[in-house]
Amino acid sequence: MEVGFLGLGIMGKAIAMNLLRHGFKVTVWNRTLSKCDELVEHGASVAESPAAVVKKCKFTFTMLSDPSAALAVVFGKDGIVEHISGGKGYIDMSTVDAGTSSKISEVITKKGGYFLEAPVSGSKKPAEDGQLVILAAGEQALYEEVLPAFNVIGKKSFYLGQVGNGAKMKLVVNMIMGSMMNAFSEGLVLAGRSGLDPSVLLDVLDLGGIANPMFRLKGPTMIQGSHSPAFPLKHQQKDMRLALSLGDETAVSMPVAAAANEAFKKARSMGLGELDFSAVYETVKALEPPSQIS
Amino acid sequence: MEVGFLGLGIMGKAIAMNLLRHGFKVTVWNRTLSKCDELVEHGASVAESPAAVVKKCKFTFTMLSDPSAALAVVFGKDGIVEHISGGKGYIDMSTVDAGTSSKISEVITKKGGYFLEAPVSGSKKPAEDGQLVILAAGEQALYEEVLPAFNVIGKKSFYLGQVGNGAKMKLVVNMIMGSMMNAFSEGLVLAGRSGLDPSVLLDVLDLGGIANPMFRLKGPTMIQGSHSPAFPLKHQQKDMRLALSLGDETAVSMPVAAAANEAFKKARSMGLGELDFSAVYETVKALEPPSQIS
Amino acid sequence: MEVGFLGLGIMGKAIAMNLLRHGFKVTVWNRTLSKCDELVEHGASVAESPAAVVKKCKFTFTMLSDPSAALAVVFGKDGIVEHISGGKGYIDMSTVDAGTSSKISEVITKKGGYFLEAPVSGSKKPAEDGQLVILAAGEQALYEEVLPAFNVIGKKSFYLGQVGNGAKMKLVVNMIMGSMMNAFSEGLVLAGRSGLDPSVLLDVLDLGGIANPMFRLKGPTMIQGSHSPAFPLKHQQKDMRLALSLGDETAVSMPVAAAANEAFKKARSMGLGELDFSAVYETVKALEPPSQIS
Amino acid sequence: MEVGFLGLGIMGKAIAMNLLRHGFKVTVWNRTLSKCDELVEHGASVAESPAAVVKKCKFTFTMLSDPSAALAVVFGKDGIVEHISGGKGYIDMSTVDAGTSSKISEVITKKGGYFLEAPVSGSKKPAEDGQLVILAAGEQALYEEVLPAFNVIGKKSFYLGQVGNGAKMKLVVNMIMGSMMNAFSEGLVLAGRSGLDPSVLLDVLDLGGIANPMFRLKGPTMIQGSHSPAFPLKHQQKDMRLALSLGDETAVSMPVAAAANEAFKKARSMGLGELDFSAVYETVKALEPPSQIS
Repeated sequence: MEVGFLGLGIMGKAIAMNLLRHGFKVTVWNRTLSKCDELVEHGASVAESPAAVVKKCKFTFTMLSDPSAALAVVFGKDGIVEHISGGKGYIDMSTVDAGTSSKISEVITKKGGYFLEAPVSGSKKPAEDGQLVILAAGEQALYEEVLPAFNVIGKKSFYLGQVGNGAKMKLVVNMIMGSMMNAFSEGLVLAGRSGLDPSVLLDVLDLGGIANPMFRLKGPTMIQGSHSPAFPLKHQQKDMRLALSLGDETAVSMPVAAAANEAFKKARSMGLGELDFSAVYETVKALEPPSQIS
Repeated sequence: MEVGFLGLGIMGKAIAMNLLRHGFKVTVWNRTLSKCDELVEHGASVAESPAAVVKKCKFTFTMLSDPSAALAVVFGKDGIVEHISGGKGYIDMSTVDAGTSSKISEVITKKGGYFLEAPVSGSKKPAEDGQLVILAAGEQALYEEVLPAFNVIGKKSFYLGQVGNGAKMKLVVNMIMGSMMNAFSEGLVLAGRSGLDPSVLLDVLDLGGIANPMFRLKGPTMIQGSHSPAFPLKHQQKDMRLALSLGDETAVSMPVAAAANEAFKKARSMGLGELDFSAVYETVKALEPPSQIS
Repeated sequence: MEVGFLGLGIMGKAIAMNLLRHGFKVTVWNRTLSKCDELVEHGASVAESPAAVVKKCKFTFTMLSDPSAALAVVFGKDGIVEHISGGKGYIDMSTVDAGTSSKISEVITKKGGYFLEAPVSGSKKPAEDGQLVILAAGEQALYEEVLPAFNVIGKKSFYLGQVGNGAKMKLVVNMIMGSMMNAFSEGLVLAGRSGLDPSVLLDVLDLGGIANPMFRLKGPTMIQGSHSPAFPLKHQQKDMRLALSLGDETAVSMPVAAAANEAFKKARSMGLGELDFSAVYETVKALEPPSQIS
Repeated sequence: MEVGFLGLGIMGKAIAMNLLRHGFKVTVWNRTLSKCDELVEHGASVAESPAAVVKKCKFTFTMLSDPSAALAVVFGKDGIVEHISGGKGYIDMSTVDAGTSSKISEVITKKGGYFLEAPVSGSKKPAEDGQLVILAAGEQALYEEVLPAFNVIGKKSFYLGQVGNGAKMKLVVNMIMGSMMNAFSEGLVLAGRSGLDPSVLLDVLDLGGIANPMFRLKGPTMIQGSHSPAFPLKHQQKDMRLALSLGDETAVSMPVAAAANEAFKKARSMGLGELDFSAVYETVKALEPPSQIS
């Protein structure tokens, strides 16, 4: 199976490498061409533009960092739109908003191409290990055709229906995750302030019905006040906001998510937005008031 | 090792049976004596009162359903206090409040006995399988001595320091659990109302960083509106209230737990207090207003 | 002083009438021309389009119901842009979002005109009595020139600086109002459920430090479950959302407003969005769960 | 009319002085006897103990600072119980919890006396001016008899039914007040952070439907970061907690009050408990994180 791959950042490179390793023929493109070198060593071909990739390959995957980059490879000079045509498939794995997905979907479809949005759950390590979870939505026939690729990229892929549903599913998951991080932070601080050892709380939690990888991974560093950014707090707060906004459209009252969102905003106001989202823990701790209060 | 065991409810019976199975000599007592029969068949002796158990055994374990029962076996007629004395150990595994624990601890200690509170995390199945988690606090020497019994009862036991810490640890864990149940409920309803399939959300969650046994176990029945009580909502709400109260004493602001607590109260006001605590899910769904509103 | 006036809905008509009554020469226009009749009887002239009004008058006031209407009189056929020019002033009293205000401001300014946004606080009765509060922002020189008109329309006007500040000020006021309505609702229900007479609570509140016109006006009807719409709940909730969004941009954590917003959303999910915003009271009362829960 | 008066703190002294000024014969007692001097100059008699006051007077009023003081004058040496008897009335104006009121009510009634709890709304100035609001509950006949005194002490008195209702009414009022203070604080900070002048917000608020004495009084000093204690934050937070606890007993979910309570707790954790309850404003502002966070 021959596929194109656009975008060789941390995630994109890991995914493309996995495809190569499993026998796919891969033609890559990246804005900074030198990033293609390592993949070429492992057997990839290089094309000089997104348009050239699409011209050559029936299926093109993209993994870019943000909506503007995702739009640029489609609508920009030598972009996808120039060569997408009947029967070709375009699969965008970037995490973008519903509006961006819709715009891309519309133009691809109008030109006779097929479109899938396919954001993933999981970060660098699962990408390297082919253990991502893929949340695909859009053209179902295309989904069936590229399933062999998804099976290599991830441990599981889902087909979720119409374009936009992939992004929504990711928001719902991240909203639950954000509230859980707050619950966890409150528990850790309460334990410490009540004379219990927070690291023993971690052990107790890990043996019970709510044990989960996130508590296990982040608990020990949180206690030390270390929040090296894996998923920046400002992005987590943005996802909480978007999920609450989705709840506003659909009239779902979510008081716990709303309280969690305000805690993340408090963290931002304290200048912690660039740290890991576990830094919301710092908002629960006792804080010094500004000195001029009387 | 010879031990006494008071209280043969669902939990107590399972624990006592485990002790017998692993070669402990066990003398049992229960208010309704007939409940002792099955244990006698497996080799237990029976004593006619708590006092008689303590007279006979160096270590006596208790597992009762509430504070008043826990107090009755200590202070009531033929109660523990009549025969507790130098060197004897009393281990109360009931889940009671700090005040009850303190009262019992005080009288045992005054009579020369040793006391441990040892509430457990886990319900019927883990009790039968010897997979409980034991949160012990009080006399450390006693903890060391009865560790062989704890090792049979549970997969892990913790010694947490002074009396009261066992109960506090359980509160902190249950508080995190209650907030998580709310986050989960909000996510399930948001998914459904946004055109996503909630059961697919369960699958996605179970593959990611916040996968945990509680979501896995309760998700499918929640979606069906079935909340058969494993841990009644009114008890979960009581634990949220007590944890928030602990936070009040120690000046820990916990906005997410507070929002979750109000949702559990809303569920109580809807008459759902006797159902499982997963019934908080019903508060997130759209509700009919009273008909006379204009 | 000669002024134009566009938009003769409930508010616009009351304001224009006030201007006439105080000796202003007023040229009116309304989409449905018959609505001009009553004003003509009191001495107003009529023009056949917004463009015609602006051509004739140095200062033109507008009071329309929503952003699309506000944009239509400016950009539509025979709209303001066709005759706005050097030295002419355009004062938009409609309540619109910052984006709409900016668009209008830009085009007016580009054509050499002057622009003020001037949303008002107060509804029909204060409009008729000339007791509105005017929240003006934009061109300060224009504000000074039209002050005589503002003095007739309102009991007080404020100049708040750059375009957008009028809308923001109104959002902040409405946010405080929305949280207060929730606090009030919670208190009324708590009183009733605790064996106190809610109407006595109203009397007590009205004698103390938090006595205010809103509690006085709405309390008695709320207790009766009557929420005849003066300010529809869905609009109040929209303003809460916009205020929270403003807080998101500026990193202000507002947990009480967020909780209030979720209660308004709950009311919307119960189908109460068209009633008065006091209907949030119904979310605090005990609610029936869906019947199929087990 | 001859009355006794126990407790000559700030409030008690002002009330007793009012009674004297309006022609009541007053016999006073205070733990520190010297505090009686000023009242004696204005015509009061002095008795040497609570018991002596009750022996002499048909009606005895008490205004003490806390439950333990309120209990001491009843049950302590030379306390009320020694001379309360058939037909005598005891009116406790202290703000105490329901349990304390009940204990006092019980013993007074058992001895054949009559009891009223009568907490007041209002502080020093209204007390001096006879402008308090009296929230009386208990023996209705006694209420009717002492109404002439209440009419002098306050601008309005309420008879609220059974003992405990006075305290509950005060809690409900204070809960609404606490949530309003939070809403107000959030609005002030949001205004400032959004480029609006918070003192203009105060002017706008004071002209609208939610204008109230508390905003008018406290707004200007809050903006300056000055929170000189009129009603200490720790007491406000205690009242929020008790009101939420009342809501817990009666299954009333109050998410806005709960969020406000957590903000007051956050203020306490910042060391602001002794300042005025307006200091909750400081929790809304941006805060510095502890320096060791990474």
